[in-house]
Amino acid sequence: MESAFLYFIPALGVLGLVVMAAKSVWVTKQPSGEENMVELAGYIAEGAMAFLKAEWKILTYFAIIAAALLAWSGTMVETSSPIIAVSFIIGAVFSATAGYFGMNIATKANVRTTQAARTSLKKALNVAFTGGSVMGLGVAGLAVLGLGSLFIIFYQLYVVSTGGSVNGIAMEKAIEVLAGFSLGAESIALFARVGGGIYTKAADVGADLVGKVEAGIPEDDVRNPATIADNVGDNVGDVAGMGADLFGSYVATILASMVLGREIVVSDQFGGLSPIILPMAIAGIGIVFSIVGFSLVRISDDNGSVQKALNLGNWTSIVLVTIACFFLVKWMLPDKMNLRGREFSDTDVFYAIVVGSIVGALMSIVTEYYTAMGKRPVKSIVRQSETGAATNIIGGLSVGMESTLVPILVLASGIFTAHYFAGLYGVAIAAAGMMATTAMQLAIDAFGPIADNAGGIAEMSGLPDEVRGRTDILDAVGNTTAATGKGFAIASAALTALALFAAFVGLAGIDSIDIYKAEVLAGLFVGGMIPFIFSSLAIAAVGRAAMEMVREVRRQFAEIPGIMEHKAKPEYDKCVAISTEASLKEMMLPGAIALITPVVVGFSFGPEVLGGLLAGVTVSGVLMGMFQNNAGGAWDNAKKSFESGVEINGKEYLKGSEPHKASVTGDTVGDPFKDTSGPSMNILIKLMSIVALIIAPHIAVHTDHGTEKEPAPRTAVERSVSSPSVSAGYLKN
Amino acid sequence: MESAFLYFIPALGVLGLVVMAAKSVWVTKQPSGEENMVELAGYIAEGAMAFLKAEWKILTYFAIIAAALLAWSGTMVETSSPIIAVSFIIGAVFSATAGYFGMNIATKANVRTTQAARTSLKKALNVAFTGGSVMGLGVAGLAVLGLGSLFIIFYQLYVVSTGGSVNGIAMEKAIEVLAGFSLGAESIALFARVGGGIYTKAADVGADLVGKVEAGIPEDDVRNPATIADNVGDNVGDVAGMGADLFGSYVATILASMVLGREIVVSDQFGGLSPIILPMAIAGIGIVFSIVGFSLVRISDDNGSVQKALNLGNWTSIVLVTIACFFLVKWMLPDKMNLRGREFSDTDVFYAIVVGSIVGALMSIVTEYYTAMGKRPVKSIVRQSETGAATNIIGGLSVGMESTLVPILVLASGIFTAHYFAGLYGVAIAAAGMMATTAMQLAIDAFGPIADNAGGIAEMSGLPDEVRGRTDILDAVGNTTAATGKGFAIASAALTALALFAAFVGLAGIDSIDIYKAEVLAGLFVGGMIPFIFSSLAIAAVGRAAMEMVREVRRQFAEIPGIMEHKAKPEYDKCVAISTEASLKEMMLPGAIALITPVVVGFSFGPEVLGGLLAGVTVSGVLMGMFQNNAGGAWDNAKKSFESGVEINGKEYLKGSEPHKASVTGDTVGDPFKDTSGPSMNILIKLMSIVALIIAPHIAVHTDHGTEKEPAPRTAVERSVSSPSVSAGYLKN
Repeated sequence: MESAFLYFIPALGVLGLVVMAAKSVWVTKQPSGEENMVELAGYIAEGAMAFLKAEWKILTYFAIIAAALLAWSGTMVETSSPIIAVSFIIGAVFSATAGYFGMNIATKANVRTTQAARTSLKKALNVAFTGGSVMGLGVAGLAVLGLGSLFIIFYQLYVVSTGGSVNGIAMEKAIEVLAGFSLGAESIALFARVGGGIYTKAADVGADLVGKVEAGIPEDDVRNPATIADNVGDNVGDVAGMGADLFGSYVATILASMVLGREIVVSDQFGGLSPIILPMAIAGIGIVFSIVGFSLVRISDDNGSVQKALNLGNWTSIVLVTIACFFLVKWMLPDKMNLRGREFSDTDVFYAIVVGSIVGALMSIVTEYYTAMGKRPVKSIVRQSETGAATNIIGGLSVGMESTLVPILVLASGIFTAHYFAGLYGVAIAAAGMMATTAMQLAIDAFGPIADNAGGIAEMSGLPDEVRGRTDILDAVGNTTAATGKGFAIASAALTALALFAAFVGLAGIDSIDIYKAEVLAGLFVGGMIPFIFSSLAIAAVGRAAMEMVREVRRQFAEIPGIMEHKAKPEYDKCVAISTEASLKEMMLPGAIALITPVVVGFSFGPEVLGGLLAGVTVSGVLMGMFQNNAGGAWDNAKKSFESGVEINGKEYLKGSEPHKASVTGDTVGDPFKDTSGPSMNILIKLMSIVALIIAPHIAVHTDHGTEKEPAPRTAVERSVSSPSVSAGYLKN
Repeated sequence: MESAFLYFIPALGVLGLVVMAAKSVWVTKQPSGEENMVELAGYIAEGAMAFLKAEWKILTYFAIIAAALLAWSGTMVETSSPIIAVSFIIGAVFSATAGYFGMNIATKANVRTTQAARTSLKKALNVAFTGGSVMGLGVAGLAVLGLGSLFIIFYQLYVVSTGGSVNGIAMEKAIEVLAGFSLGAESIALFARVGGGIYTKAADVGADLVGKVEAGIPEDDVRNPATIADNVGDNVGDVAGMGADLFGSYVATILASMVLGREIVVSDQFGGLSPIILPMAIAGIGIVFSIVGFSLVRISDDNGSVQKALNLGNWTSIVLVTIACFFLVKWMLPDKMNLRGREFSDTDVFYAIVVGSIVGALMSIVTEYYTAMGKRPVKSIVRQSETGAATNIIGGLSVGMESTLVPILVLASGIFTAHYFAGLYGVAIAAAGMMATTAMQLAIDAFGPIADNAGGIAEMSGLPDEVRGRTDILDAVGNTTAATGKGFAIASAALTALALFAAFVGLAGIDSIDIYKAEVLAGLFVGGMIPFIFSSLAIAAVGRAAMEMVREVRRQFAEIPGIMEHKAKPEYDKCVAISTEASLKEMMLPGAIALITPVVVGFSFGPEVLGGLLAGVTVSGVLMGMFQNNAGGAWDNAKKSFESGVEINGKEYLKGSEPHKASVTGDTVGDPFKDTSGPSMNILIKLMSIVALIIAPHIAVHTDHGTEKEPAPRTAVERSVSSPSVSAGYLKN
């Protein structure tokens, strides 16, 4: 039965994928409306796929080179293997596939949501959210399937077949090879997030600057040559980019917990494997309860609150998963465990999971406070718009910086408390607990851009106002979920990075990262600087690409007669091509920095300096991520506040007023902040940590650390459990 | 003779003050022009003094409470004394006095520079620079005098009179009490910098928003009610604030080197004191060679280059000080020394000094590159102004973030290299070497706002264009020196903080700060967040105060008839009062955060977590300081570029064009960045480090660490040297 449980994990992944397929078929079957709607949706789908194809072409070269290097490096140390390259490729392909699933369905769900909105809000929500849940299940399902089955294979290959120890060097090798899967996933995520972020904002800023400001036509106007690129951008940035990001976090978190779990020597019914497989099991049951939660996201009639429906589904799945974790932990783990000299019980591990859930929830709540309309921060920016763009921007920058206060205190307390309960394993498992409902989080997240696109299509096809009114309700909720989703993503990235950090220390054979040492402190400084440079590159890339877009749109307005009179069609494809090329070109340098820096620093200065670098990147990256995400979100909603009219010092201001114009400037500044550089921080910190983890055995300070670090069995029971014959025999039961 | 040398150090401070007095008398004797010029200068001087008085009143309460707490805490541990309160008060008074000297002369030199500019550029430069050098000598002279004489007193009191050891607990107590001087100086600096920064930008932004933008009158127009407050701001922010900042860095650097020097056991002609008094001696000779450098800052005729003259004076003093340091080090230090197990020679210490000078120079050069007109970064912002304020601001933010790259690499290499040569003492002494020519750096720095004021007075008094032309030449150079001065200030703050960090570790009785420990990592996160919150508060304060100023200026334009026709005088004093009150009110919370956080964290979580906090504050503070200073400087010069006309994509744009207007918005956003929050980062990181140093003995992990840590003498010679009778007898020779 226990052996069956190990196979049960990938089966839960398959369950997720089966439900995904069913939902996908349902969405595809929904009516997609009239010809012009289908035509517009077709442009968007085409543009999105064109981007994916172009991106994949480049990423194939990258993956081949990276895999070759990994295979070569795998031959260098005892605790790795060239198979890590295969693991890497599978991770990359799975991540790309998850992005493809999500984007494919999003570009179908958008127009079907528009069509459904012609009937009722209830139906539109159903289509849009089902589209989002396909993305969520695709990511979670592929991750659990991939990790779960690769673990079985590598466990058989390196532990069972060699008769190695579950807590020893054989398992270290199995998990190191498995880490290739995470590296593959996170590498694709980097390019998807950065490339997608540059794409979407180059199109958005370019479309707004010429369309709204110069030509005076509304957003999503079919006459704007960049409008299709803008809508494509929502899909490649907010759907595929976000999906790849969370896929990466999800996998990395589970992996880091497994690395730490390997060091815990236990006697259990799983042949000592329970601390290693617990994180995967949590992820598996997370899929089940996310599916349960999905069924609660509905409104009974058009007066129902969409936000409440989403909250109900979300909270139900979080609470159910947490309860289930209690039983899972009690069933799987022994009463007492020990990691690196720190004792804790199974209940302590459960408490750490609860800490993770609370941290995730609080981060989302705080993010919402700082970016929601009608709350103090956004209202202060609205007020400061009265004296012009400059004070609006000063206000937004100040709000963004302020917004780091509570989340950092929450995060620091979370680290402290999770560690208090269950040591480093507690920190890692807290992250795993937080990420358990990733399928639900992503469904809520991906719902936003689908609704946004649906509104765009309604506008472009000239549907009646009531249709746009319904999609606007969904879009407004989507803006809030986008902000809270970013809060969740950065919190998960931070906890993941910390778990990886702890795992790295173990694998690198060091037992401290002492910033009192000059060279480690120097590493901390350099690490802290990297998020600034990365952000600078991403923001500058958007600026450059947007300028190119502006020139192209101006050219089309000037050279194609009749666009303004709806007599001629703009060349949408030219704008799509500009965004595609610019984003692919501009993602190279930031990507290279993230991948190469840890390798250079690690091999030149050793693991402790690399540890300092990672700490610097993580702290600075989390801060810069929150600052940029929240400043951008707050500017956006300050602008939106004017659309329904605001009162400043007793005067009423509406859309088109001077303060509103000032707020549009702020929103444009915020665009690359919140959709390009800000969200990229998540991946930057995770990717650098994973690269460090992968190279850890190569730069480890004790060449013989693998055997040296093998924990000595303490009791007779443990001794018998961790002896090769018993532990390796587990799967044979 | 060696005993005489100890008295020689404060004597060099007195020398600086005597030369200062002579230069001050000379400036005061210069003609101050016609009645209306004197009247305007009178308003500025009055406003500046009103601010100082109001500030001092509040600071007196603060100083009394802080001194009482210090005196009480001084009774708690063996290695401190209530006398630390006296030391603190003297530090506060000296810092305030240095600010007073500088501001007093600056508000006299401004109008005299205007008057001199009616004759020739040569004469105007002479008056303005002499005014600046009074500030420089005042700061350096008071610092060296204060530290030098207090050291003699405390050395007599705690070491000589008790027969204690130079390297033991007696000297630890003497230096701990001396640290009160540094705390006093840095506390005043905090309020001067933050308060001054808020003052100057509230006035500037407020004056610009209504005057330039709404009423369409030029900058420094006498009809603008806020113009006097704006000019006062240049003095309280850029003169008094900068002076207090560098006074604090200067003192803290020397002190940190002394703390580390105490741990070095040597046998020398100074009774084992040489590593302790070397940093003061370097500062002393720095004053001498700064005075030599001053005499080189002149131009032969009006076609001479002001920048070249400043560079000649600056480089001469740096090179001469470095050469002198070689002989000083060789003469004072023994061949071989040892600090915390790290061996190094006297020549190694000299190399560390050279490293410090090079780091300082490189930081200034890089800062200049990123903020100078005609260079790639500023040109890119100019180009991005074509598509409006949003892209201009995106460009500036990107440049600011990018500008952290090279300085951080330089700083990290500097830490690494200085440590390579002479361990932690090397890092501290590198900072001391860099700060040696503080008198010269400050003279160059203070010259800028004097020239700026001179131009303002020329404009307000309606003097001929050629006069304004001459002051504009000085002002333009002043803008460059302001930027490089900020680069120098942040570099010095970073090195100072690191030296204090090392000193803190020693005094707190810990031997590592291990960020692999969860609670230390949590401290690192919280520390990293503080500069964001501090910046947010400072920026928001400017925003609020500027809005108040806007309302007041609008009121005066509306309620006082005839202002626009020069028939009625605006009520300048009302605007001055607004800036004064707002800045004093708004400086409280940031100040409290800086002072209280380390105390709370240190006592709640112990020294290692506090160490993590300090590292987080330092890394994040240095990055945020550079980012904000350089973004602000670049926006400013992008705007200035339009004043002489620029070409973008083959089109010529001048002042008043749309891109120019966009660049004005960018400049306004940059104002609080570069003059309020950015420069405050220096003080934030230093002050928190000093507070940590002061509380270190209270939170030390070994209660008996004082005796325990006393280094064991290694050789017979050292034993005899460090025995109480010999070492304490030094001053009796």
